[in-house]
Amino acid sequence: MRKLAPVELTKLMLARIEQLNPKLNAYITVTTELALAQAKKAESELFAPRGRKGLGDRGPLHGIPISLKDNIYTKGIRTTAGSRILKDFIPQHDAQVVVLLREAGAVLLGKTNMHEFAYGVTTNNPHYGPARNPWDPARIPGGSSGGSAAAVAAGLCYGSIGTDTGGSIRIPASLCGIVGLKPTRGHVSDSGVIPLSPTLDSTGPLARSTRDAAIILRAIAQTPSFPFGSWPAQAFSAKLPKPRLGLPEELFFKLLSDDIGNVFDAAIRDFSKLGATTRKISIPLLNETEEDGNQITWAEATHYHQQAGHFPRRTADYGEDVRARLEMGTKVFATSYLQSLYLRVRFIHQLLFAMDEAGVNALAVPTTPISAPVIGEETTVLAREEHPTRALLLRNNRPANLAGISALSIPCGFTQSGLPVGLQLIGRHTGEQTLLRIAHAYERAHPEQRRPPL
Amino acid sequence: MRKLAPVELTKLMLARIEQLNPKLNAYITVTTELALAQAKKAESELFAPRGRKGLGDRGPLHGIPISLKDNIYTKGIRTTAGSRILKDFIPQHDAQVVVLLREAGAVLLGKTNMHEFAYGVTTNNPHYGPARNPWDPARIPGGSSGGSAAAVAAGLCYGSIGTDTGGSIRIPASLCGIVGLKPTRGHVSDSGVIPLSPTLDSTGPLARSTRDAAIILRAIAQTPSFPFGSWPAQAFSAKLPKPRLGLPEELFFKLLSDDIGNVFDAAIRDFSKLGATTRKISIPLLNETEEDGNQITWAEATHYHQQAGHFPRRTADYGEDVRARLEMGTKVFATSYLQSLYLRVRFIHQLLFAMDEAGVNALAVPTTPISAPVIGEETTVLAREEHPTRALLLRNNRPANLAGISALSIPCGFTQSGLPVGLQLIGRHTGEQTLLRIAHAYERAHPEQRRPPL
Repeated sequence: MRKLAPVELTKLMLARIEQLNPKLNAYITVTTELALAQAKKAESELFAPRGRKGLGDRGPLHGIPISLKDNIYTKGIRTTAGSRILKDFIPQHDAQVVVLLREAGAVLLGKTNMHEFAYGVTTNNPHYGPARNPWDPARIPGGSSGGSAAAVAAGLCYGSIGTDTGGSIRIPASLCGIVGLKPTRGHVSDSGVIPLSPTLDSTGPLARSTRDAAIILRAIAQTPSFPFGSWPAQAFSAKLPKPRLGLPEELFFKLLSDDIGNVFDAAIRDFSKLGATTRKISIPLLNETEEDGNQITWAEATHYHQQAGHFPRRTADYGEDVRARLEMGTKVFATSYLQSLYLRVRFIHQLLFAMDEAGVNALAVPTTPISAPVIGEETTVLAREEHPTRALLLRNNRPANLAGISALSIPCGFTQSGLPVGLQLIGRHTGEQTLLRIAHAYERAHPEQRRPPL
Repeated sequence: MRKLAPVELTKLMLARIEQLNPKLNAYITVTTELALAQAKKAESELFAPRGRKGLGDRGPLHGIPISLKDNIYTKGIRTTAGSRILKDFIPQHDAQVVVLLREAGAVLLGKTNMHEFAYGVTTNNPHYGPARNPWDPARIPGGSSGGSAAAVAAGLCYGSIGTDTGGSIRIPASLCGIVGLKPTRGHVSDSGVIPLSPTLDSTGPLARSTRDAAIILRAIAQTPSFPFGSWPAQAFSAKLPKPRLGLPEELFFKLLSDDIGNVFDAAIRDFSKLGATTRKISIPLLNETEEDGNQITWAEATHYHQQAGHFPRRTADYGEDVRARLEMGTKVFATSYLQSLYLRVRFIHQLLFAMDEAGVNALAVPTTPISAPVIGEETTVLAREEHPTRALLLRNNRPANLAGISALSIPCGFTQSGLPVGLQLIGRHTGEQTLLRIAHAYERAHPEQRRPPL
């Protein structure tokens, strides 16, 4: 990853941000001075004479400029969560992931735009303006970690940290043509991350490649992700038995644009050329995941906003869509919530049992059934019917949040109109390494990279 | 405990059941033949020549006749949970506690009467008739483990297993003048026990003495309760430093009949004579525990009954009071439920922190603010105001369920009208041993025992 010196790299990123952020609105806050200071410090550490105490190479993130979604606490740097309510909020401490990134020597470029309070999938933010997709600025980058994905895709940072409650890392990764990893729940600390739905939230990396995602995950994980070596490259070089991929019969392929279906099928053929085999797999409770995910998120999100003193006290300060969702949450009955928790447990068992039975290493599905919609588009026509765009973007992502398992979205091609398509690999608990290795083999076989037309 | 042979003991108990159960209605089902068979087996094991394989003494419960609350699964023996809905339900497996009791060699006399589905504190059961208090059959034994407490107090068994969600072991122990122990949540398996409110339920012993309670706990615990010796007596003989008892400023003493207050104060003076010191302790969130306990129990109980397919399908088959409570549960909002869970966590921290700060081994409080009410009495006058009897019986017990900690009720005297008074010691997580040792010292210093006038 590191060929240039940290200061030069950071200046390059800051110049690109200055040039392109007005167009993409990927950042809410750019921490120029902090970034330069951190880069200088990293440079002095990296290029100091060997053996001087406290100095030396801290690993592959040392001196690398990255960004953070703006719902991650940064000490002394405002953390808006994309909201008006927190527009002047300055945390007094860093989130645990930030502490770990500082220890790894990463350079912080700034805080990225996001769907307000992470409660939506468009990043059409009413307070800070919509973030825009680098492949077509008239389109959404997806959300809620939309600013992070846009920044990574446009080369406004080398990687970013996002959060994912129903797909908020994978959806924007898919729509922006980058890698997004939702880790196993609990694998990365939530401490100091403003929650959306605490039992579904995960914090994880958005990156340019599976290797970069692995490097970032390794830095922020609470438990070692790559036990057999200090550098993820070793994980990748180890021989992986030919993977078996499960293609679920329910949910994922029922509603899909033709474009996405074709690109996905081609990608699966490419996986086969690499030695992967595929197998159909049935998980009937997948059909409950949309309703369960809604019940749990509605209740938990509203409770958090009540608890934090924002809702209903500051109802008028929310954007229209988030306010409506918070109001939904006041209407969920405790018995429905408990029923959804109960079904979630049954779903987890059914999913893991089916994967074991079929002997699959991962499920392979399209991350999103459509490519990036135009900003403001509330409904999308698929199979001659109008569907809420939000529900379409969520549907293939929620199952991994409900199950608490690992899931990775990687770019797998482009639609005929040139928009990126994402392929999602869904793994077991602590399955990150397996997913990254499977994806890395595919990535290596497809080194051609298109860049957004910026 | 064992002076008579198991068959003789069992016959004695069966004869007393035959004589007294028509009056007390403590048992729903008496398993006469099974009890005699188990007693014979125990006797042959106990009195077999030493060294014969599979035989020998299994410990202090071997051959001892006990009873089980009727919400505990018994293979091949109907388990009604005190309900009409389950009046013909015969489990195909034993609850985990039953498996462990069988291993310990206990003899099963039968299944005890209880408040319908454990959802109440009177055991005024509309389907099987009210259980009655051995000290005055016009009065309730308390509930929901009322049949167990009545049976132990009247000498219709040597001990019993009950369940406690808001006081359902301690309340009847208090009103019937026996020992009742609510273990730390999770210390005893809930597997095969029909739940009331899964995050509050605990299974534990009702017994004649602290030593008997310790013997039973040791048999049914998932983790060793008495690590320093195979026989609880060793735990009791070990020197206990003079205990420090906390007297909470909130909740427990705010509403108390004069009778109970006087007996409790005298008991505390007796504890002081034994070397105990007392200390006031403030735990402000105790004032939230009634509301929190209600929200959690209402929601979880109704969800369980929906889940089990009983409610609302068989609404008409519930007793009036339980039906009304189940209907309350349909009205709880998820956000209120989550708020109660949140407050519960804060309460647990506040309680444990206050106990640590004050350096107290246990809280000492009256188990119930009143002695046994007359059957059917819905309200009780205290401090010139009418109070719901149910809420009075619950209020001092719920805090330990919310906190998930251990709590023990022991007899500490009698009201002027001759009804038993209970003193509750509330300990830390896995504090059972400390509580039993403190209580045992008191019990040993007060060997006088009154028996119910039967």
